[in-house]
Amino acid sequence: MAQAQAVVKALKFRSGFVTAVVRDFKTKEVLMAAMQNKLAVLKTLTTGLMYYWSRSRRKLWLKGEQSGHHQKVRKVLVDCDGDVLLFDVEQVGAACHEGYRSCFYREVKQGRLVTVLKRKFRPEDIYGRRTTSK
Amino acid sequence: MAQAQAVVKALKFRSGFVTAVVRDFKTKEVLMAAMQNKLAVLKTLTTGLMYYWSRSRRKLWLKGEQSGHHQKVRKVLVDCDGDVLLFDVEQVGAACHEGYRSCFYREVKQGRLVTVLKRKFRPEDIYGRRTTSK
Repeated sequence: MAQAQAVVKALKFRSGFVTAVVRDFKTKEVLMAAMQNKLAVLKTLTTGLMYYWSRSRRKLWLKGEQSGHHQKVRKVLVDCDGDVLLFDVEQVGAACHEGYRSCFYREVKQGRLVTVLKRKFRPEDIYGRRTTSK
Repeated sequence: MAQAQAVVKALKFRSGFVTAVVRDFKTKEVLMAAMQNKLAVLKTLTTGLMYYWSRSRRKLWLKGEQSGHHQKVRKVLVDCDGDVLLFDVEQVGAACHEGYRSCFYREVKQGRLVTVLKRKFRPEDIYGRRTTSK
């Protein structure tokens, strides 16, 4: 806990937040990016599971709390300004609540967003009719 | 320009910003992450060079305007919520104003931030005595 607090002290929270960028620890595929407040960083570092601050739901959010699609932390990198963290994780299931392995499943092509990944699950099978977002 | 505006319309700017995560287009190494306002996204999509909003300097910022270390856009991916963009770029020189190829040159080890990359240049050789940040 003291070690986690030392890391938090070295970070630069802007309006209370740092950005967390998350990769698959093996493939290095970028899975998602979301915001973390101090508590989310502390919980992540002490439990080894990714926690975020959900801006849409305005609450601390354990990734996978509903879906079981947890993210187990393997490595943590920090950027020059201390306001972005890069996490290498072991992703259980899929990162995206829309059913894709990565949240970055759309590519910009000639002004349009084109889906370039295949779904791993149907959101309604995991979340029921409601889907959650960051 | 109309195509770039169509993409901007499909995005979700939170308090005026989206997050830009930037990778080397060949190695897929994550180089940096920073914020973009609508103008930064539009300039990026229309010129093919990365523009950001500098929160510390409160101004639009062409990456490389001082250092020459531009980022040429090769691919743009968009996340599920439309509030994070993942850019694959051709990085001229190094991404980090501290002289490293990637801004993520420090790793968390037992509560300490340990430098794990080697410098590509000395900041004072590029920027003079002042260093700039995001």
